[in-house]
Amino acid sequence: MALQPQRTIDELKELRALTGDADGAQRVAWTPIWDAARDWFKAKLAGLPVEVERDQAGNVWVTLRGASDDALLMGGHLDSVPNGGWLDGSLNVIAGLEVLRRIAEQGTPPVTIRLVDWADEEGARFGRSLLGSSACGGVAFDPDKVRTLSDKQGVTLPDALARYGLSVDTMRESHQQLARAKAYLELHIEQGPVLESMDLPLGVVLGTFGVERHAIRFIGQAAHSGSTPMDKRHDAFAAAAKLGLDIRDIARRHSGVCTMGSVVTKPGIVTAVVGECDCTLDQRNLNADALAGMLADAKAASERFAAEEKVEVEWRKLWEIEPILFHPDLIDLCEQSILETCGASHRLPSGPLHDAAEVSRAGVPTIMLFVQSLRGISHNKIEDTKEEHIALSVEALDRLASKTIAWIQK
Amino acid sequence: MALQPQRTIDELKELRALTGDADGAQRVAWTPIWDAARDWFKAKLAGLPVEVERDQAGNVWVTLRGASDDALLMGGHLDSVPNGGWLDGSLNVIAGLEVLRRIAEQGTPPVTIRLVDWADEEGARFGRSLLGSSACGGVAFDPDKVRTLSDKQGVTLPDALARYGLSVDTMRESHQQLARAKAYLELHIEQGPVLESMDLPLGVVLGTFGVERHAIRFIGQAAHSGSTPMDKRHDAFAAAAKLGLDIRDIARRHSGVCTMGSVVTKPGIVTAVVGECDCTLDQRNLNADALAGMLADAKAASERFAAEEKVEVEWRKLWEIEPILFHPDLIDLCEQSILETCGASHRLPSGPLHDAAEVSRAGVPTIMLFVQSLRGISHNKIEDTKEEHIALSVEALDRLASKTIAWIQK
Repeated sequence: MALQPQRTIDELKELRALTGDADGAQRVAWTPIWDAARDWFKAKLAGLPVEVERDQAGNVWVTLRGASDDALLMGGHLDSVPNGGWLDGSLNVIAGLEVLRRIAEQGTPPVTIRLVDWADEEGARFGRSLLGSSACGGVAFDPDKVRTLSDKQGVTLPDALARYGLSVDTMRESHQQLARAKAYLELHIEQGPVLESMDLPLGVVLGTFGVERHAIRFIGQAAHSGSTPMDKRHDAFAAAAKLGLDIRDIARRHSGVCTMGSVVTKPGIVTAVVGECDCTLDQRNLNADALAGMLADAKAASERFAAEEKVEVEWRKLWEIEPILFHPDLIDLCEQSILETCGASHRLPSGPLHDAAEVSRAGVPTIMLFVQSLRGISHNKIEDTKEEHIALSVEALDRLASKTIAWIQK
Repeated sequence: MALQPQRTIDELKELRALTGDADGAQRVAWTPIWDAARDWFKAKLAGLPVEVERDQAGNVWVTLRGASDDALLMGGHLDSVPNGGWLDGSLNVIAGLEVLRRIAEQGTPPVTIRLVDWADEEGARFGRSLLGSSACGGVAFDPDKVRTLSDKQGVTLPDALARYGLSVDTMRESHQQLARAKAYLELHIEQGPVLESMDLPLGVVLGTFGVERHAIRFIGQAAHSGSTPMDKRHDAFAAAAKLGLDIRDIARRHSGVCTMGSVVTKPGIVTAVVGECDCTLDQRNLNADALAGMLADAKAASERFAAEEKVEVEWRKLWEIEPILFHPDLIDLCEQSILETCGASHRLPSGPLHDAAEVSRAGVPTIMLFVQSLRGISHNKIEDTKEEHIALSVEALDRLASKTIAWIQK
């Protein structure tokens, strides 16, 4: 067996030593440390029978030509958030490299194999995540919406791109990379607690959640905490508290998740009944109808609670995206690969978005597999996964690649 | 009838014109506008057979000598918060002046009548309310606790007092003013919605609420709003929301009030389950046992909710004061005075503290009467009371003064 999962672990550690510090990974896209990570990666390709090119969106493509131009894609991202973890994104670039080595060793594959390092998945510097993959996918990318982005030092995205010979106006030309793409595979750490809680190393990802994100304001009447009897109050916080508790039932009813993450009370002092309460509501579901149902239920609940508490309520949409479902055949192949690797699997949705969502939206049959995250923690230097699980994930990705090559040929 | 309640209304308006601006009253203690208000007040005393003195705490005493040195006190405060209302504090100084005029007109009273303008009731500049009355009362005043206070410009309280020839070290000597005090009367706007909601102009105050004030911290685990299933969360906000709703039942059960006025969520972003939630709890009750019961119930509830939500909870005391009950005989006399004035009365506690609480704590039989506040609003330029109600309040105070003089003589 030519596949060497231990080499993936060793290379991940090499990359960590090269591009991290005491606070974690520092491979922020469009910075010198990211450039160093990509140079390191390119050096690893030496001796492999592959072509390497960078497309108009800054994505790096490694191509192993096959008997057919129909292509199997595998992808990840070397960029990280500041003070990030060692696995988020880079795991699949490096695991994909290992699978590519194994396939190349066996001679010309029946289909072309392409490994992509997406540019700027995290959006850490300019606040726009999935930049390279969305430009390539072409569904959710508008040059005019990214043209004005700037970092904390005031450098604009176009200026940063220019240093790489790139322009927001030509980024969408990267879409041609998908012309013969027949399937896309992405291995990622779960970044959540589900697999760990089930004591499973690996899981099949059904798709990425659709998201409804709103700001909700309850407007009551500020009043003195001593002179205002309980039955004379218009307490904006009470309505928010009721909603904050009710969204849990709404989430369970619709098999999704709902989160009230920010709550701000005004005047916000110990001696005043809350006159105004601003909260945020983040709702996610894999099913579009269920997502719409969760939103409708939360709106109805907020109005009921506002009436009960004699306050007003206002809603404002912050952001939304529809659920993106992965390919049913690939879900089955992925599950088989995991079962053959470790004997047990679990199907779960992805809460966070990934580059895979943009590829899937572009019409390429797509699948992700998750490997367990310790404590569910990511975007943090303590992000971690057991080495034995990393090894299993490389094996499962390799099996999935073989099965998918056969599926493409059919 | 020599009493002229309309004169009180006219004088309140005069004072408003002299010491207010478009944003409201600006009679902050230890500032030139406050000095101007006190000078205006002293000028109003011209021609009355009274002695005027300022004590070591900065309180101004107006004394109409009677046949006995036993004294009936009436008091209020000319100082206001910045951008304050026209009635808070000044109503009783000016209504008391009208009652004093009426008594003086009838010759030497059987007991001595003293009107006091307490210094710095609001604590608006140095953050210490009831300064003059607590120094005089002597129960709750410690020079070492006020010595280090300073205003936003860094001026210390001792420096501000020095400009008035006063010192924190001698303020308690003002206590001698209470040597022959046999009763203390204070008329005040309600600053709450109770009398307005009952359509009553006047009410008898039973005492001032005891207060328990705490900071409560719920500590859960911040987690990604997308990747963390509902049953894997340690949501600090959920526990806070449950407590914020439960304190209402606790308040009703013990006939008090409970307020969660400040709620702060951390990290406080739309995409994160709340890891830490800081809230404040203000609990007030007229009955000391009931106040202790409310606190015990809230602590038990917070621990129950923390356990339910798999989070931790910590309590920290911010402040406390015991309930101060007014004199039962004076409660009856006050109720009779109100009934004779307008035919209906209501007994209610005071949520806010007042100078009367400090006088009562010093052992002087004390009573307050409240006049209706429109919309329950105070400490704001829109603070208001119907003029017909102000007139009734002056009449009731006058009747109460007569009845109390007779009560002192008995």
